[in-house]
Amino acid sequence: MPTPTATWIDGVRAEALPLPDRALAFGDGLFETLLLYHGDPLFTELHMQRLQRGLQVLVFPDCLATASEQLQVAAGAVRKLGWPWAALRLTISRGPGPRGYAPPVATKPRVIISASELSDDCQQMAAAATLSLATVRWPTQPALAGLKHLNRLEQVLAAAECRAAGTDEAVMLDQSGQVVSVVAGNLFLLHEERLQTPVLRDCGIAGTRRRLVIEQWATALGLPVQESTLSLQDLESADEVFYCNSLKGLRPVASFGQRHWSSHTVCQALFEQYQRGLP
Amino acid sequence: MPTPTATWIDGVRAEALPLPDRALAFGDGLFETLLLYHGDPLFTELHMQRLQRGLQVLVFPDCLATASEQLQVAAGAVRKLGWPWAALRLTISRGPGPRGYAPPVATKPRVIISASELSDDCQQMAAAATLSLATVRWPTQPALAGLKHLNRLEQVLAAAECRAAGTDEAVMLDQSGQVVSVVAGNLFLLHEERLQTPVLRDCGIAGTRRRLVIEQWATALGLPVQESTLSLQDLESADEVFYCNSLKGLRPVASFGQRHWSSHTVCQALFEQYQRGLP
Repeated sequence: MPTPTATWIDGVRAEALPLPDRALAFGDGLFETLLLYHGDPLFTELHMQRLQRGLQVLVFPDCLATASEQLQVAAGAVRKLGWPWAALRLTISRGPGPRGYAPPVATKPRVIISASELSDDCQQMAAAATLSLATVRWPTQPALAGLKHLNRLEQVLAAAECRAAGTDEAVMLDQSGQVVSVVAGNLFLLHEERLQTPVLRDCGIAGTRRRLVIEQWATALGLPVQESTLSLQDLESADEVFYCNSLKGLRPVASFGQRHWSSHTVCQALFEQYQRGLP
Repeated sequence: MPTPTATWIDGVRAEALPLPDRALAFGDGLFETLLLYHGDPLFTELHMQRLQRGLQVLVFPDCLATASEQLQVAAGAVRKLGWPWAALRLTISRGPGPRGYAPPVATKPRVIISASELSDDCQQMAAAATLSLATVRWPTQPALAGLKHLNRLEQVLAAAECRAAGTDEAVMLDQSGQVVSVVAGNLFLLHEERLQTPVLRDCGIAGTRRRLVIEQWATALGLPVQESTLSLQDLESADEVFYCNSLKGLRPVASFGQRHWSSHTVCQALFEQYQRGLP
């Protein structure tokens, strides 16, 4: 059975995108994936802050207030639909435009929102994940690193590899072979009571939950966190590994290839911090 | 007045794209821009060869025959519309799919074709172009280099810079500062009766007209061509510079910053080779 889904374009229920559209043509836009609990979007401010940074870098006209309003409209509709947990994808496209790469002089961005019911109880920590290694690597692009823009082919290809490998997630490296992330989440390694997470200077997405771990949850537990250049050896020698994203919160890692982890103590403790922020 | 345009999805005239669509969500797809003369697509085989390579790399089901058929349908319609010259954009999206990066197990690619009338007489060589330098650089991604996929944010940003600079085109560099291309075209430099063009190992698009210059037109003139790593100094010290793309064929370069070129002899001779291939 397909997942129940509802879509809005510029605040109106829609089933099709008017053409032309630059997000379709060039990936010219940004997105956010928000977790909704009974129609309430969680950690909205962090999502909007990342979106705002992206709008600035891509030189979009300011449409953050409009996007926020339309998010509330869609969230209200999800509330009425009675979905306990939902994933809401908020996409901002640069909108229509004439042929060619150059953005139109008078840009009218479009807000495309799609909400899907989730079957999981997102208040519970997911079972520990198995990881494989994706052969496709992140591109080197410091100008766009950290942003959640619409150019996501590497993650698409890595997700296909992950499925073929039969694991829950796949580790993605940068062009020099350093560890960056999993396909849909930021990685954290525990080494001697210290957390480390890959620095996102040249690639990767700066996740909202990554930010919460660094700025709030680890601090609450008295755990130091460092953004570092991390190798596969660092990953394999870690005492504990977990990843985070907006839908799962934090998820412990059970294995990466032949390496297995049975302790998920720190992830569990951080998940309890996360749970406190849930409604 | 907006350019007359017509759009087809899966062979049927359309004005909107059914949602969800993975080209919109992730830039999960490929495209080609073909030049049509009275409804006849030019150099179709080269476009289809690049498309086929892209379909393989992105692990799409083989849909080349379908795309070719739909190209013919659209081209036939353009013929009836009576447009002397037209640009036809053929986009292949991975099509619909559930939430998340992983491609659907049963992928049904979509063929989206959009044709626009061109006001230029494409049988004539365009006036020599002025070039500026874009600050945004190509991402390093050998796995996708050469392909015309839908992740094109860098060219969008470079095109915006180019407009702000007031030039016809902008030079784009790779992450190490070597010359790769202009925003919408491949560059060629003449040094002492030899042509050089940037090697596209880590980034850039392997243009159909670039291939024709290398494999046919330069040979016809007895000019050696080399794919090389090329610096800004190599560009500035060139005896002659031109770029090529599917709509302009070859276009001479008049200036890059303070450097001016008045001789376009080789570009002119190559353009005559190109003209012979036109109907």
